[in-house]
Amino acid sequence: MASSLLSDCSSCATSRLLPLRRALHPPPPRFRPSPAKAPPTPRSLFTAAAPLPLLPRARSMAAASSADPATALADGSARIIDGKLVAKQIRDEVGVEIARMKEATGVVPGLAVILVGSRKDSQTYVRNKKKACEAVGIKSYEVNLPEDCSEYEVVKNIATFNDDPSVHGILVQLPLPRHMNDENILNAVSIEKDVDGFHPLNIGRLAMQGRDPFFVPCTPKGCMELLHRSGVEIKGKRAVVIGRSNIVGMPAALLLQKANATVSIVHSQTKNPEEITRQADIIIAAVGVANLVRGSWIKPGAAIIDVGINPVDDPASPRGYRLVGDVCYEEASKVAGAITPVPGGVGPMTIAMLLSNTLESAKRIHNFK
Amino acid sequence: MASSLLSDCSSCATSRLLPLRRALHPPPPRFRPSPAKAPPTPRSLFTAAAPLPLLPRARSMAAASSADPATALADGSARIIDGKLVAKQIRDEVGVEIARMKEATGVVPGLAVILVGSRKDSQTYVRNKKKACEAVGIKSYEVNLPEDCSEYEVVKNIATFNDDPSVHGILVQLPLPRHMNDENILNAVSIEKDVDGFHPLNIGRLAMQGRDPFFVPCTPKGCMELLHRSGVEIKGKRAVVIGRSNIVGMPAALLLQKANATVSIVHSQTKNPEEITRQADIIIAAVGVANLVRGSWIKPGAAIIDVGINPVDDPASPRGYRLVGDVCYEEASKVAGAITPVPGGVGPMTIAMLLSNTLESAKRIHNFK
Repeated sequence: MASSLLSDCSSCATSRLLPLRRALHPPPPRFRPSPAKAPPTPRSLFTAAAPLPLLPRARSMAAASSADPATALADGSARIIDGKLVAKQIRDEVGVEIARMKEATGVVPGLAVILVGSRKDSQTYVRNKKKACEAVGIKSYEVNLPEDCSEYEVVKNIATFNDDPSVHGILVQLPLPRHMNDENILNAVSIEKDVDGFHPLNIGRLAMQGRDPFFVPCTPKGCMELLHRSGVEIKGKRAVVIGRSNIVGMPAALLLQKANATVSIVHSQTKNPEEITRQADIIIAAVGVANLVRGSWIKPGAAIIDVGINPVDDPASPRGYRLVGDVCYEEASKVAGAITPVPGGVGPMTIAMLLSNTLESAKRIHNFK
Repeated sequence: MASSLLSDCSSCATSRLLPLRRALHPPPPRFRPSPAKAPPTPRSLFTAAAPLPLLPRARSMAAASSADPATALADGSARIIDGKLVAKQIRDEVGVEIARMKEATGVVPGLAVILVGSRKDSQTYVRNKKKACEAVGIKSYEVNLPEDCSEYEVVKNIATFNDDPSVHGILVQLPLPRHMNDENILNAVSIEKDVDGFHPLNIGRLAMQGRDPFFVPCTPKGCMELLHRSGVEIKGKRAVVIGRSNIVGMPAALLLQKANATVSIVHSQTKNPEEITRQADIIIAAVGVANLVRGSWIKPGAAIIDVGINPVDDPASPRGYRLVGDVCYEEASKVAGAITPVPGGVGPMTIAMLLSNTLESAKRIHNFK
């Protein structure tokens, strides 16, 4: 029963009616945990409400070519923006560039990852990054520090990588243990090697006209890349970003703004999120609330980038849960012009953009065009 | 005739119909020049169109108390947010704090201004800042460099002030001569003394949740102060910022967002600025186009902060021109709940906030609470 409720998005029927300030509270972490057994979605949020009536279908976006990463669904609904495919294209391009650089200069880009503690999910992400680096020819460096190490030890390791000419990107895996100050640690990363793009100087340059950041944060950069490669026009379009986290929502809004969209940011204090979202030609949802954005929130033909990866309980699944986005895919795919699936949308893009940022850094440091 | 056309805002009747991408192009400089004879507004933009029909009056905002800086107009239309009065209140408060600090610590806050070249308007601004500093007890330092000096000379002077413990704020008067790179020069100002708040690190911290900038840029800070002191609620309200310059529009949008408004940014590429602006409970107009925002753009009861100070020709004036805002005051004051006049609105706030930032810097450097 729960699974059928979930499949028609009614799991969020109540949360939609709750004030968004409560529903939107938790910002999505940089990489969402993939627990062995996901925490079940609170039962009190489940009500067997009828699905909302859908708006009439429209296909205002240009039809996808066969080589387009946004391919039409068999049933004629929204084009799926295939993040796996785009991410693979990017990894291939990065691999080719790295080979060219190595041949011309002898330099191999290097990425250092610092992992503090032994969270299973963080270990998985670090392992995946390492694998992805190897596949494209980036040398990866790893430091594992115990959960109870001091902030000073982390900063000392960052300083070593800052000074190491074979390292072009440094990444501190989040979340950090509670006794550490994220800001102090992230600020210790040299601005030239901050491939995550989280340094406030990077964010400031992202916000300013006439300036460019050293690095664009990976997940929002991935969102933009999906839009660009799917042929979604941004300039002059209305865009709504749902969520304003430092790592996705806020930089995504700045990027859309830089690309000349007219941007509105919907967040936990927004009183009429549905009405505002319905005006958008482009929606980036990055709020970490399962199925929050219903079909009725969507302007026919809009392009939707769904950053959320939320575990919801699903007895029919062998793991007892499955992953859904912030957007009710079933409803949205009947209204939107293009949409990213979850999983397989934004998810694969984050690591691809990390590889791209590391290459970019190595090219800049070695002045290789 | 021109003056009567201007008085009913029809000077912008055509520009309203022009695509905003053309009309919104010039970003407002930090301080608007006050030329001896202002350049006349292009005659081709003038057409004797009838004023737009006004929306019904509404007074959704709380009634102003007698001590409120937003006082009711005699004719019962929008409350005027009196920037002169608020700026005076702030200067008085700053003066009291400086006296308290001096008595307790012996420290007198110091502000250094670097002026390059001999633009009349820049000289006037620097003189006004000096006067304002003296009036509240801030010691002012001034360096005048010739128009043809090198970037290196400017940076060298900045470095001297960076190292001078009696200087707590450093300001480089803009615009700089064309042969100089603004970015290099502004970045040379120590982040602890960047009372203008233009350093990208400051902007980044302004954009990020959980971070605070060392300094908030003076004009947008002044806009927020006007809203706060006029009792305009921001949290949960729809806000539209018109213009996205690095020195006003963009930081104003970030400040509104930080204050939990739902913010949309209208700019030169926005296709339907009127429709979007009409949704706003709060409008900050900072685009540098005379009378762009008409009555029909305004939601009844909205609060309007007009940053524009645009010279338009006026044969009836002894100087041949007069100053108007980006908002058609005559129309807007009949629709809005509260509005800043031009001049006498945001203008006086900028220097007041500069004094406030200089005091804040001295307090921080000397750890004085």
